Amino acid sequence: MVPRYSRPAMTAIWSAENRYRIWFEIEALACEAMANLGTIPRESAQNIRRRGDEAMAAFSDADLARIDEIEAETRHDVIAFLTWLAEKIGDDSRFVHLGMTSSDVLDTCLSVQLVQATDLLLKDMDVVLAALKKQAFAHKNTVTIGRSHGIHAEPTSFGLKMAGHYAEFARNRKRLETARSEIAVCAISGAVGTFAHLDPKVEAYVAEKLGLSCEDVSTQIIPRDRHAAYFCALAVTASAIERLATEVRHLQRSELREAEEFFHPGQKGSSAMPHKRNPVLSENLTGLARLVRSAIVPALENVTLWHERDISHSSVERNLAPDATIGLDFALMRLADMMDKLLIYPERMEANLNALGGVVHSGEVLLALAKAGFSREDAYRLVQKHAMATWTLLGKPEGRSFRENLLSDPEVTQHITPSALDAAMRSENHLVAVDDIFKKVFGA
Amino acid sequence: MVPRYSRPAMTAIWSAENRYRIWFEIEALACEAMANLGTIPRESAQNIRRRGDEAMAAFSDADLARIDEIEAETRHDVIAFLTWLAEKIGDDSRFVHLGMTSSDVLDTCLSVQLVQATDLLLKDMDVVLAALKKQAFAHKNTVTIGRSHGIHAEPTSFGLKMAGHYAEFARNRKRLETARSEIAVCAISGAVGTFAHLDPKVEAYVAEKLGLSCEDVSTQIIPRDRHAAYFCALAVTASAIERLATEVRHLQRSELREAEEFFHPGQKGSSAMPHKRNPVLSENLTGLARLVRSAIVPALENVTLWHERDISHSSVERNLAPDATIGLDFALMRLADMMDKLLIYPERMEANLNALGGVVHSGEVLLALAKAGFSREDAYRLVQKHAMATWTLLGKPEGRSFRENLLSDPEVTQHITPSALDAAMRSENHLVAVDDIFKKVFGA
Amino acid sequence: MVPRYSRPAMTAIWSAENRYRIWFEIEALACEAMANLGTIPRESAQNIRRRGDEAMAAFSDADLARIDEIEAETRHDVIAFLTWLAEKIGDDSRFVHLGMTSSDVLDTCLSVQLVQATDLLLKDMDVVLAALKKQAFAHKNTVTIGRSHGIHAEPTSFGLKMAGHYAEFARNRKRLETARSEIAVCAISGAVGTFAHLDPKVEAYVAEKLGLSCEDVSTQIIPRDRHAAYFCALAVTASAIERLATEVRHLQRSELREAEEFFHPGQKGSSAMPHKRNPVLSENLTGLARLVRSAIVPALENVTLWHERDISHSSVERNLAPDATIGLDFALMRLADMMDKLLIYPERMEANLNALGGVVHSGEVLLALAKAGFSREDAYRLVQKHAMATWTLLGKPEGRSFRENLLSDPEVTQHITPSALDAAMRSENHLVAVDDIFKKVFGA
Amino acid sequence: MVPRYSRPAMTAIWSAENRYRIWFEIEALACEAMANLGTIPRESAQNIRRRGDEAMAAFSDADLARIDEIEAETRHDVIAFLTWLAEKIGDDSRFVHLGMTSSDVLDTCLSVQLVQATDLLLKDMDVVLAALKKQAFAHKNTVTIGRSHGIHAEPTSFGLKMAGHYAEFARNRKRLETARSEIAVCAISGAVGTFAHLDPKVEAYVAEKLGLSCEDVSTQIIPRDRHAAYFCALAVTASAIERLATEVRHLQRSELREAEEFFHPGQKGSSAMPHKRNPVLSENLTGLARLVRSAIVPALENVTLWHERDISHSSVERNLAPDATIGLDFALMRLADMMDKLLIYPERMEANLNALGGVVHSGEVLLALAKAGFSREDAYRLVQKHAMATWTLLGKPEGRSFRENLLSDPEVTQHITPSALDAAMRSENHLVAVDDIFKKVFGA
Repeated sequence: MVPRYSRPAMTAIWSAENRYRIWFEIEALACEAMANLGTIPRESAQNIRRRGDEAMAAFSDADLARIDEIEAETRHDVIAFLTWLAEKIGDDSRFVHLGMTSSDVLDTCLSVQLVQATDLLLKDMDVVLAALKKQAFAHKNTVTIGRSHGIHAEPTSFGLKMAGHYAEFARNRKRLETARSEIAVCAISGAVGTFAHLDPKVEAYVAEKLGLSCEDVSTQIIPRDRHAAYFCALAVTASAIERLATEVRHLQRSELREAEEFFHPGQKGSSAMPHKRNPVLSENLTGLARLVRSAIVPALENVTLWHERDISHSSVERNLAPDATIGLDFALMRLADMMDKLLIYPERMEANLNALGGVVHSGEVLLALAKAGFSREDAYRLVQKHAMATWTLLGKPEGRSFRENLLSDPEVTQHITPSALDAAMRSENHLVAVDDIFKKVFGA
Repeated sequence: MVPRYSRPAMTAIWSAENRYRIWFEIEALACEAMANLGTIPRESAQNIRRRGDEAMAAFSDADLARIDEIEAETRHDVIAFLTWLAEKIGDDSRFVHLGMTSSDVLDTCLSVQLVQATDLLLKDMDVVLAALKKQAFAHKNTVTIGRSHGIHAEPTSFGLKMAGHYAEFARNRKRLETARSEIAVCAISGAVGTFAHLDPKVEAYVAEKLGLSCEDVSTQIIPRDRHAAYFCALAVTASAIERLATEVRHLQRSELREAEEFFHPGQKGSSAMPHKRNPVLSENLTGLARLVRSAIVPALENVTLWHERDISHSSVERNLAPDATIGLDFALMRLADMMDKLLIYPERMEANLNALGGVVHSGEVLLALAKAGFSREDAYRLVQKHAMATWTLLGKPEGRSFRENLLSDPEVTQHITPSALDAAMRSENHLVAVDDIFKKVFGA
Repeated sequence: MVPRYSRPAMTAIWSAENRYRIWFEIEALACEAMANLGTIPRESAQNIRRRGDEAMAAFSDADLARIDEIEAETRHDVIAFLTWLAEKIGDDSRFVHLGMTSSDVLDTCLSVQLVQATDLLLKDMDVVLAALKKQAFAHKNTVTIGRSHGIHAEPTSFGLKMAGHYAEFARNRKRLETARSEIAVCAISGAVGTFAHLDPKVEAYVAEKLGLSCEDVSTQIIPRDRHAAYFCALAVTASAIERLATEVRHLQRSELREAEEFFHPGQKGSSAMPHKRNPVLSENLTGLARLVRSAIVPALENVTLWHERDISHSSVERNLAPDATIGLDFALMRLADMMDKLLIYPERMEANLNALGGVVHSGEVLLALAKAGFSREDAYRLVQKHAMATWTLLGKPEGRSFRENLLSDPEVTQHITPSALDAAMRSENHLVAVDDIFKKVFGA
Repeated sequence: MVPRYSRPAMTAIWSAENRYRIWFEIEALACEAMANLGTIPRESAQNIRRRGDEAMAAFSDADLARIDEIEAETRHDVIAFLTWLAEKIGDDSRFVHLGMTSSDVLDTCLSVQLVQATDLLLKDMDVVLAALKKQAFAHKNTVTIGRSHGIHAEPTSFGLKMAGHYAEFARNRKRLETARSEIAVCAISGAVGTFAHLDPKVEAYVAEKLGLSCEDVSTQIIPRDRHAAYFCALAVTASAIERLATEVRHLQRSELREAEEFFHPGQKGSSAMPHKRNPVLSENLTGLARLVRSAIVPALENVTLWHERDISHSSVERNLAPDATIGLDFALMRLADMMDKLLIYPERMEANLNALGGVVHSGEVLLALAKAGFSREDAYRLVQKHAMATWTLLGKPEGRSFRENLLSDPEVTQHITPSALDAAMRSENHLVAVDDIFKKVFGA
């Protein structure tokens, strides 16, 4: 992910330094476990822990360079790290990584990084949810037109729109939690997962200390269905971002102007057209959602590895894991800020709602006519006729409102009074269930 | 593809009967070629051709059932067909398929079917192009607002919009032609493509008769990069459909009402809301585009087969090839009809263009001020200030037009005359290059 | 999905008839709820239920044709069905669908169909799990070589391989259950989800009777993040199929011959090469997995609908929902049968394990040398040297086994005895944890 | 793309500095064109060119920081650059960017960068092609077993395998050339592509100088179908890499050992298993192919922008364009080197070919029996019977070769002589067309 769309907190999780810290932690914990089991001398384990902690505390670019140098020779990243670590620890280093295989370290480390990343994403989600809740309650009863197919349908409230997006993000928060448990898994089981050279208690110890569970069957690696499911959860969340961003983009359209992204003083919308205030944040979020989603196809292709493992997944994950989590983290926080500061124009909502001459009440008028004794078919025919007539002449001198058209038709007025008609054309009718829905979504 | 989105002409190409016809044609042609080479008796080849032609002419559901019956036993579709054919041809059938492998028939048949499908798609494209050209010329000088980010930018013409989509479809027509040549390929080269039991002249003869070229190196099968490239061309075309459909969906929005899909007499837009006229065709096209595009990931995954071939691509193609071509054929013809009948409302375009008080001319005013001696920065600051003021008070009693705001500012009027300002605010200024662009797109 | 890869039980769920049955059930239940609330006469609700049940019981192709005929006129599928239903029910039909919108019926019906489909898939999974469990226990201690990167690594057991796949399918079973609850949702909330013309108790009643939960916020439709998450679960499951199928394809390779798909009497592997027995089922499963996975990109693109809804998702789902569930159902049952009948050749496993002269024990020899006092670096160097020497001369007259090479090196023999070396080269060493792992996977 | 998989030559193309260089070049050329047209003073254009060239020549990190600083204020990258440029150029800067819009610069720059990237990729392709050609000719007549479904089929030559991959890469080279021309496009047409403030001759001049063609209809931006088609070409090429990498992975399997990646002195294959030499390069290429392919879904989603443009594509391309080109460049060069140094073991190929007792000649034996007078069905039955018998007892004491089995059957020997049988079982028979195929692929 380019720096433009990266936040330091998430980027740090994917830094080489954080990776080496976690690698060391896994090795040190494994040594402790082996010391507990009597496999290696306790003193050596303590020594490894102490000198290793010192080395990690003093970790600098020089250490990075040294590890890279060794890797250029061995062409193996874990061996390079272990060699560097041995230089720091001395003779006891021969007890490090004993009976383990590189993937024990690599895969458990990836789990830790993904857990760290997910915890950050869950916090981000809470900020998004808070912003949406704020706007939902602020506009709980702000009437606006509901639109299906981009066409005015019936009135609803802006708060209800926000509540719907809140509910979707709440579902995604839950999906992320499930995804977190999918990948919060430790594997320290040796070359093909048989624990041939390693007591399963080592894995259990390291897992517990790292807050992970033990993989049921690892085969050198943790099976990649877990990671595929993880990236799927990110992708579904990304789509929720795109859906909300698209709503904002629509509302800000020049013809609607019902809401608008905050426009900073000094900001320039266009080099050529000084009048422009564009919904660039929500458009950007639309693009970021595409990027985050693009992780799923390769993540699913990663599941099918050969026999006990091949390493084709590795290059994919070195890119995907940072890209998708950094991108989603950035997008969530941008979204939260954008929604929090969103400028909302109730008077424009009202103006738009009324702009079609009242045809948006056709549904309730249909029911009123049905109640007044019309058959469904007759009522539909009449209402459609007058609605279309209203619509067609909108804005023209000879145009009349839906109400006027209906009241000029004796077939209508024979069965229904003007006041009954007016009662069917009140936007407030559509807010009756808002309280109930809010209770479902936000609790009591 | 469900029947709802299928046209008979394309569906027929993917019928079992058409497939068997092509299989027989390949076998018969191969026999002719072998007879020419003296590999098999000429009389036998003629016999095979005559009796086979008769069998195919009389082909009925009973034949389909018979072939299915044999396949249930042999679990091999080509062997089942050949056994059925032998029942029809008699003794000479032992010269059929001599030295050939099933894929020689299957893959060359798929090529023929894809060529047939593409020829239909190319015709569809011509119908789309004709509809777009018609609307482009009809509205060559119909002024409408150009929108970037969903926000009014500067005037353009509706014909120019259409010309842009025309140019995109013309590019896609060319891509489809290239895609056609990618898969118009014949392979009759035996079990692993070595021509060990078969003279390459057989392949050359069959290819020529079928209007195909010979594969450079087939390895039992035609390499699947060709098919992947083919489906990519379909996917890019599908995206062009979605782009145009999205334009129509936007234009039909209740707040814009600049264009509208034809609404049939008797049509009902909604069971609950009789006033509704929804852009359901263009929304449907948006969905169909997603479907057609979904072919590309499996098509790309099909490229990597094991060694000389594995058969994992087969189940994919049995679905993808019909689905993607049937879906695209249906979508193109629906699009063409929709664009041909599209209701276009120039007066709504004009009303929308003027609805922002003239700020859409900010770009040209900026240039006029620059020409009048302002620095770029000063001009930008002034124009942005007055545009934002106009915008903010739009529709309010105290609101003024962009022109009024500019002319009330001495800093402006010191440098530029009202008539120079008016000259910068004419929508027609933006049509100066339309003729040139039309010439580029549509020719002289 | 082409009939070739479809099973009747799943296909029936997606038939027009099943859809109409569910539509009627939703309408009838809604009428019951409204009668309970006093909104419509109880007698009418009973009448609707009785006559509707009769009509559905007698449902025939003539009814299908009649509905199609009405839809051709109204261009609206739900209105067409309701009109047909009114013909069957008579006057009381005016109480049907009262205050409801088409999507109330369509979306709740899709939920019911997806639940039906998922229940079938869950049963399929159980059959797969049973087949895997059978083979796992049958070969719990069948030694085979574990392979990383396609290269012999260390011994493992064939039962452990099976247990790993079992664990993956068990995880996917759980994911499918979660996915089921994602889409087991009812929405009967009117045109934009406000319950304006409809008591929320109607939705609650219908939901309960259908075994669904109520959507938190529906906006005419059930939000599509639910469906996207659903198809993701199918996609991850499909990848598990591909992973296992790929394992079988590898094991059946001519050079391995460790396992083989059942080859039916009368089956022909190739029209040109009578000796062929190909792993066509597992290759086919590989392709089917690609197909099922291809649903996710359009499913994710479906999430972002405009405002309260647009209908672009509909054409996508009309194809995806049947295709993905039918394809996955077929693939799971084919897989289960294939694994159940899989021919397994332990003697070939043993032969392959021994074919590299014993170098597969290098890891344990390394540990033995380390235990014997070598530094990690020295032990690695020695073991690598002798392993490479063994490997390089494999099958050549001057070649020696890994054991012979090691024992010919004084640097080795100074520190370790032949019997200690032999102890490190026993395949059985690698089975020590199999019991523990089986307990984790299969329970006590 | 992480640095691990990046080469400096390609990374430099996507650096901020290269971008600014191209931006300046576009602005300077546009000024020259305007000076030619008399729109701006020639002296000013010369001044802009001279001072700008000096500024770009002296471009340093301080300049990058200054531009970033301005962008933080204006939130607009092009305006930030122009402001920095104005600081360098002075008063004449007011003639820079006159009548242009940011996308004129951004999109034309992206075209230039993609052209630069593609030229590098085309060179890479040539290196790949050279390596494949070398191996093809070196092993033109090296007999190896052809495999379909992973099962031995018939003999072929290793050179022919290489020729097949060569032909696929040659097709992809052509696709890349077509893709290059797709995106080698210039647009300098103003805010919505109408040339309202800008003579089309400016675009024509800049295009010619940059080696680009002029976009037919730009709408502020170059339409994104071009870029989608571009990334599709990259994706198809990536799949070719995966296909070849998969071939190598198979050939290096422990049971085949027909080829092997070069293993560097000092390289370590596994931290736990010193005997390992893994095909890590080809596995890595498999993963990189997945990454490059993952660009196509977002690239296709980028096509559908709103009206004249929205900016959702931008964040996608800021990542995709570098990632896909850097990844593909790295993968191609890694592949070329890997294929060039590939260790190839003809003796292992021969051993494997013979390992199935000769059944791989069943196809030619079938033809020989047919020629000897058997019906196709009888011949198939006989050959299948003896092939299966051979296969089943492979490696067992009672096992016999295919030849022995056939010659022990009187039904066979009545019709065919041992020498005729032997003639049908010569691997060399399968090389008859190699010369012809090589001529097709590599030319005379």
